[in-house]
Parts: sequence; C-alpha cells; structure tokens
Amino acid sequence: MKLKVKILKLQAGRPVSILHERTADKLSVNIDDRITITNGNKKIVSVVDIATGLLQKDEVAVSEEVIEALKLKEDDVVEINIAPHPESIYLIHKKLMCTPLNQFEFEKIISDIVKNALTGPEIAYFVSAIYKCGMSVKEIEYLIRAIVSSGNVIKLRGKVADKHSIGGVAGNRTTPIVISICAAAGLKMPKTSSRAITSAAGTADVIECLASVDFSIKEIKKIIKKNNACMVWGGSLGLAPADDKIIQIEKLMNLDPEPQLLASILSKKLSVDSKYVLIDIPYGRSAKVSEAQAVKLKDKFEKFGKSFKIDLRCILTDGSQPIGHGIGSVLEMKDVLAVLRQEQNRPPDLEKKSLLLAGKLFEMTGETEEGKGVEMAEKILKSGKAFKKFKKIIKSQKGSVSDSRLKLGEFSRDILSAKSGKITEINNRKINLIARILGSPTDKGAGIYLHKHCKEKVNKREILLTFYSESEEKLADAIKFYKKIHPVKIK
Amino acid sequence: MKLKVKILKLQAGRPVSILHERTADKLSVNIDDRITITNGNKKIVSVVDIATGLLQKDEVAVSEEVIEALKLKEDDVVEINIAPHPESIYLIHKKLMCTPLNQFEFEKIISDIVKNALTGPEIAYFVSAIYKCGMSVKEIEYLIRAIVSSGNVIKLRGKVADKHSIGGVAGNRTTPIVISICAAAGLKMPKTSSRAITSAAGTADVIECLASVDFSIKEIKKIIKKNNACMVWGGSLGLAPADDKIIQIEKLMNLDPEPQLLASILSKKLSVDSKYVLIDIPYGRSAKVSEAQAVKLKDKFEKFGKSFKIDLRCILTDGSQPIGHGIGSVLEMKDVLAVLRQEQNRPPDLEKKSLLLAGKLFEMTGETEEGKGVEMAEKILKSGKAFKKFKKIIKSQKGSVSDSRLKLGEFSRDILSAKSGKITEINNRKINLIARILGSPTDKGAGIYLHKHCKEKVNKREILLTFYSESEEKLADAIKFYKKIHPVKIK
Repeated sequence: MKLKVKILKLQAGRPVSILHERTADKLSVNIDDRITITNGNKKIVSVVDIATGLLQKDEVAVSEEVIEALKLKEDDVVEINIAPHPESIYLIHKKLMCTPLNQFEFEKIISDIVKNALTGPEIAYFVSAIYKCGMSVKEIEYLIRAIVSSGNVIKLRGKVADKHSIGGVAGNRTTPIVISICAAAGLKMPKTSSRAITSAAGTADVIECLASVDFSIKEIKKIIKKNNACMVWGGSLGLAPADDKIIQIEKLMNLDPEPQLLASILSKKLSVDSKYVLIDIPYGRSAKVSEAQAVKLKDKFEKFGKSFKIDLRCILTDGSQPIGHGIGSVLEMKDVLAVLRQEQNRPPDLEKKSLLLAGKLFEMTGETEEGKGVEMAEKILKSGKAFKKFKKIIKSQKGSVSDSRLKLGEFSRDILSAKSGKITEINNRKINLIARILGSPTDKGAGIYLHKHCKEKVNKREILLTFYSESEEKLADAIKFYKKIHPVKIK
Repeated sequence: MKLKVKILKLQAGRPVSILHERTADKLSVNIDDRITITNGNKKIVSVVDIATGLLQKDEVAVSEEVIEALKLKEDDVVEINIAPHPESIYLIHKKLMCTPLNQFEFEKIISDIVKNALTGPEIAYFVSAIYKCGMSVKEIEYLIRAIVSSGNVIKLRGKVADKHSIGGVAGNRTTPIVISICAAAGLKMPKTSSRAITSAAGTADVIECLASVDFSIKEIKKIIKKNNACMVWGGSLGLAPADDKIIQIEKLMNLDPEPQLLASILSKKLSVDSKYVLIDIPYGRSAKVSEAQAVKLKDKFEKFGKSFKIDLRCILTDGSQPIGHGIGSVLEMKDVLAVLRQEQNRPPDLEKKSLLLAGKLFEMTGETEEGKGVEMAEKILKSGKAFKKFKKIIKSQKGSVSDSRLKLGEFSRDILSAKSGKITEINNRKINLIARILGSPTDKGAGIYLHKHCKEKVNKREILLTFYSESEEKLADAIKFYKKIHPVKIK
C-alpha cells in the first residue's frame, strides 16, 4: 500500500509509524504489529500505532527514527507492507514449549529485545516461558552472556570490586558508605545503581540529593580515574540494556523468576568487569526471601561466580525490619552523612552493616587477612578518610556535600504509639508503601523517620514515626493508609 | 509532579500521555506504565508513552481521550502520579499460579481488557496463564459469559442460525452461498465475519469486493429485517470486543490455546443471539487439526452448546486441500458467483460443501426432516432464489453484483507442472502464504487460481496454477517463494 509521509517531531526510541484507523484495518494490522516501510531501495521495520484525527487515510506519520533511516521528507510516498515476524518470535515460542535454547538462540532474542524488534507482549511471552519452564544452569549462563554482550562494557584496571543487595529492606542505604570506605583504601568501585522500583528510594535517587548521577561512560571513567569510584545511575549507560527492558515487563506482573534475577544481577556486574562481587541477601519476615530461600540463592549465585571466573560471595543479613532512621531520599542521605561524619545520632545498624560489607570486600580482595576486614573498615571510617573520599566523589559528580541541599518535606506529622509495650515488627513492604504515598521517590524530601526499631520499648503516646511530605494531601493520604495497614506491631 | 498540558490531535482509542524522557525517568515510569492525571477534582488513568523532541520536560502531551475526560485546555497544569495497578493484574497473577478463577474474577479481567485498562504485555500474561495452566469446563463457561456480557448483543426474533468454520482451508468460501440459501428459506442469519488473519482472505474481505461490510448495529438490524440476513465485518460492532483484543495478542506468538478458541467462537455466536449454530471443523494434512483432534473438538463444542442451551452441532469435513478454484478476495467471489449463478465452470467441491452445510442447518432448524436438508438446499440454489437473495443482501449493503467490480491483478503468470503424474498434495498453509506474498488480503485482485485438485492427473508443462498480483515485484517474489516451498506435490 502506498502512503504519503507525514513528519512528526517524535523521537520514540524505536521506529514507530502511526496509521489511520481505516488504513490499519485495510492492512489488517493492529497496534504493536510490525510493518515494513520502503522508500526506493531503503527499507525499515516499524511498530504500528493507530490514530484518527492526526492524519488522513492516505498518510503515515513516522517517528524520527524512520525519517533518519529512510531519508524521508514530508509528502514522500512510501510503500507499506505487513512485516514478517522476527526469527526470535519462533525461538520464544520454542521456549514456551519448554524446549531448551542454546547460546545462539538466546543471543538472537536478547539482541532483538535491545533493537526494539520485539514488542512488550512478546517480551512478556519470553518472561512467561522462563517462568513456566524454568531454565537449566547452562541456559542461565547463555542468557547472562547474551545480555552482557548485547550492551556496553566498562573495562578497568586494578582490583575492580562491587557490592549488590537483592533489595527488599527499607532504608538499607549501605552503598555510599561501603563505596567510600573501599575506594579510600584503593579498591576500584565502578558503582552503578538503579532508581527506586517498588521501594521508597534507590541509591541513584539518594545520591541525586547532593550530586548528578547521570553521566556518559566516558565521564564515568574519568570520575573513577580520579576517585577509584563513582556512584551513578546505571539506567542510561547501555550496560546490559536487555536486562532493563526485561525487568520493566516483569514488574508489570510482579514476576521475578529466579533465573532472571540471577541473570539480571550477574550481567550488570560482568558489564562493569567486576572481579570481586559481594552480594547482600537480606532475609526474614517482610524481606524478599526467607532464610531457607536465602541459603539456596547464595548457593546458586556462588556457582555462577565460578562459571564466570569471578570471586563472588554472598552474605546473609537480617532483613526483618528497616535499617537506619530514614526511609526516603533526603532522610537516607542524612543517615549516610551521619555515619560518614561519625555524628552522635548516627544509626548504629546502618554503620554496623556497612562495616561488615566493606570488611568482607577487604578480605576478598586480599587487602587484609580473613577476620580483620571490619577492623580495617572501621579504622578508615573513623579516620575521616571515607568521608573525604565521599566528598571527592560527590564533587566529581558536579555536586557538593551541603546540608542546605537536604530539605525535608514542608508538611510533617509525628505518629504516636497507641499503647505501651515492645515493638515486635516493622514491616518493610508496608513502610515502603507509605513512603511512596508520601511522595517518594519523586519528591526527595518525602519519607519516614523511624524513632524506634524492633525489640525497643515504647510508651503510650511516645513518637514512633515522623512522616514528611511535600503535599498536605499526600500526608493526609499516608496517615489514612497507615491506620489501615499497621506497619508497626507492639505487644 | 505538575506538568503543563500540550494538546495532540491524537485519538488513540485509549487515554495516552506522552512524557519527556527525563520526566519519565524522574517519575520512574516507562512506556506502557500507567499514570494518573488529575485536573481539579477530575482524574483519569492513562498509559505512558515517551518521546523527546515533541515536548519540553515540564509538559505532558495527551490524547483526545484525556482531554475529553478532564476538560483540558492547552497549557492547563495537571498533577501526574504513578497509578496503582488495576486489580485484574493480581487476578492474572493468580491464574499464572494456576489457581482457578471464578465468574466475578473473569468479568473483572475481561472488563479491564475492554476498557483498555490492561496493556499488551499484561494481556500476554493472561494468555500465557491460560496456556500454562489450562482451564476447567466451568472456567471456560465463566470466560465466555464474561466476554459476551462485556460487549454489545444483537437480539433478533425467529429462527436465528449461524455457521462458523474453524478455518485453515484455503479458498473455503462457503459462507456467502450458505447464507443466501438459508435466508431465502426464511432462516435469520446475522452473519458477522472477520478479515483475513493468516489466510489469503476472510469472508469480510471477499464480500467487500462487491459491497460495503462496515455497518453500525442499527444498520445491520435494518439489513436483516429486509433480507433475513447480512454479511458484514464483525470488527467494529463491539460484539465480544474482549475476544478481538485477546486474539490480537495470541496472534503474536501464534498461540491458540484451545480454551480460548472455544471461548472465542462461542462468545461471537452468543452475542448475535444464535439459537442454532453449525460449526465446520475441517481436518486433515495441512488443515488446522487432525481427524482425532477434530473428534475431540466436536465433543467439547457440543458440550458447551448444551451449557448455553443452544442447538450447536459440529460437522467434520475434508480439509486436506484448498476448496474451489480461487484463493484471494476477487477470485473467491468469482467462485461464489459461479455457484450462485449455476455457471458451467463452477467449482463442484465448493458447491457440494455449501449444500451440505445449508442442508444441515435446514435439518437442525426443523425446516425439513433429517436426511432431506441437502435436497432442499439444492432446490433453492438451482431455482435461482439463493442468487436473488444474495443480490438483495449486496444491494442493502450499498453494493451491486457487477462483474466489472471483480478486477484481477494486472500482472499474472501461469505455473506449469514440472512433470507428469497425479497430484498428491496441495498444502493449504503454503498456498495461503504465497497468496499473501502476491498481495492478499490488501490487494483484492491478488491471488491464486487452482486449475487442478488432488487426485487429478497432470501432464508435464500443463498449467497447475495461475498467480495474480497488482505488482510485478510481488509476483516475482511469489514465484521465487513457490519454487522454494513446493505447495503442490505430484507423484
């Protein structure tokens, strides 16, 4: 079918064509189907969107990606046809039938995901197939290799180390402290972090209170060269990009099939060329995994570490309640600074866990002997070297450590205990949910300050929590929701 | 987050909002995520699209659906937030865990599909769940009821009958003949058909060679009142609309889980209030099902007929090769007219099958006694009454039976037999594929004329097939492809 080109100033990140509803009917295509657009001897595959009002029946509106590929001008006439399915669709179908795939086949699927040749529903089928049929150890290895090779890789010299938490614990902001301690001792720590997905804040959100987190790979290399470390957002670097897209589709259904969890974490670590990887697996009530699941996961992770010839160790930690005082970007950064500055009111649980992780990394990398890591980490922290390193990294990332940047939400409310007793539970998931209602992660000053932790005694009408929000309405919503879900249990 | 409204002249069929890439990052949303847009006390949930170039960071571009719901003007400021997941997501998750769903739960999912509250990947998870876990007879019943009640229903008086083929056989265009015969005898036949999905033509595509097929329900009722029957496209009537959306997602992966096939056909028939339904199940090599599968399918269909208290019968027919001479819209309409006009060169297989189906419907509805249906149908066909009825229906559908409307593709090529012998196979799937390369179903004049059928003798260099196309390039592509896949086998 021949159609006239209408140019949209639309960069969709992938070739998109908008057809008139009637034209789409005629072609028997629907939203998210694929068509080929031919201009002379140039041809491109594009995903279909449908609209009326925007264009005439004999027109096709195309995104910048199409214009560039086909060198189009307004009113050029192009030939539109239904496109054949990409081969990877048959491979996903094969996996849906529970037939194992080989290295080449995973590479084909992953490369099509990265090229945007597969649509959301098709990636959902891929996730479903993994979920339905599981994956052998060999297949997970293939998948990881495919994901790493589909993206950029940062190569560094020296003892390149990384830490990662599987998540699930509110306020668990050890990363900035661990990175500062380890980098101060000379370890190379190319730390890329995510933003919050279901929690109140991700490390990238927290760092962003003081500095920029969005850099190019070239800029990151410079920052690392200067400071041994960086603390940036991994989202736009093109490291293991397929992983980001798969996670986005999984998130829709809250699916997190274990093979994909393993592949996701390992591919990120391999793409920054880490030789030493420490994985924090918090377990317990309201954490992501139980103790038994944590033990199994540790075993699997460590096996893959061997396959990929890296020194990968897992550490099981108490994830039964939030860590630190603050939940939410600004509040968590205040905790981090309190530890780095060794202030009186610093949260002891956050400090202890950070020292444990940093110490373990020192032992793994041979910076000190087994059993002496925590001591070494503590010395660096207490000496002020870690804080100095932190300030340098923040400066390299175009920021500065200034308390005036850490503004809490204008509206706040103390939540008082309804009775006297001992705190028996502070539910991570519920705390995160309330923080999100308060405005996290979008509003950096929104969040929750925990005055007490589990096993502490509390009197009737004593302050349990303080809520912060940038909007009165959100604050009211959060208080209403708090009364409904009771995140803190007292006996 | 507060953003300024930019108005797009875009009717997307569902509320769509386009955010700047950076703004989407800040909100932690991605393509196909949902946001709430609030304007004063009005609020709507919208799906996110992401673009750069089209708008500024502090702007949100919204589709007409959003503008209408929130009464927006250019530059109005709206509040944007991440939207909570619709409840049906948890129900799909439940089904993915293989927990059976009840009537209420299916209704929730189906209604969210119809309201566009679920995205493509989420519907893909629903299809995957059905595929992974199967469905009990009760669940299929719930699903059918949910699909029917989610859409429009056409209520008619009299003996409302319908025929349906599960498809898969090229050229199998019995519908216009069966409808004309049965309507001539007084049966009510509210026939809604689809366009081609994977075949060369659907009944709607074929009728469209002579008349319009796109009418409102009100218009259809008028057409039926006048002629006892219609032959229209079911796509835009809102009958069982959830089914269309589910099929679109299944198509991506060529998935057609049996529960969904049953639900799809039955919901369409129930939504036009058919009391007598005849289902044609063609079986055999290169058909959709084998004989054993056909027997099982018949059994299941007839069970559901009982559940829904309709007289539903299945007829197993030979689907091992194409039916009629022509494959492709114009060629198939020529076959239909040849039978209705009782021309010398009419395809005997198409006539015979049409009489069989019409006869069966006469027996089911009590128009004649068991065993005498074909005779009755034949009499009506030979008398010219069926053709007269056909012409009337076409006229009511704003068309006319005129051979000048049936133009074959300008470019054609005879395909000669490479050797002498007997034809042992004409592969339906391969024939359909070639017809699509020739330009079907978009180009009505494109298609294949079959000079011979299975078991017929053929001499070396005798004409086997004639290809028609509206483009020389497509003709050349089809010939190349023909030589590669050998759809006709001779021994």
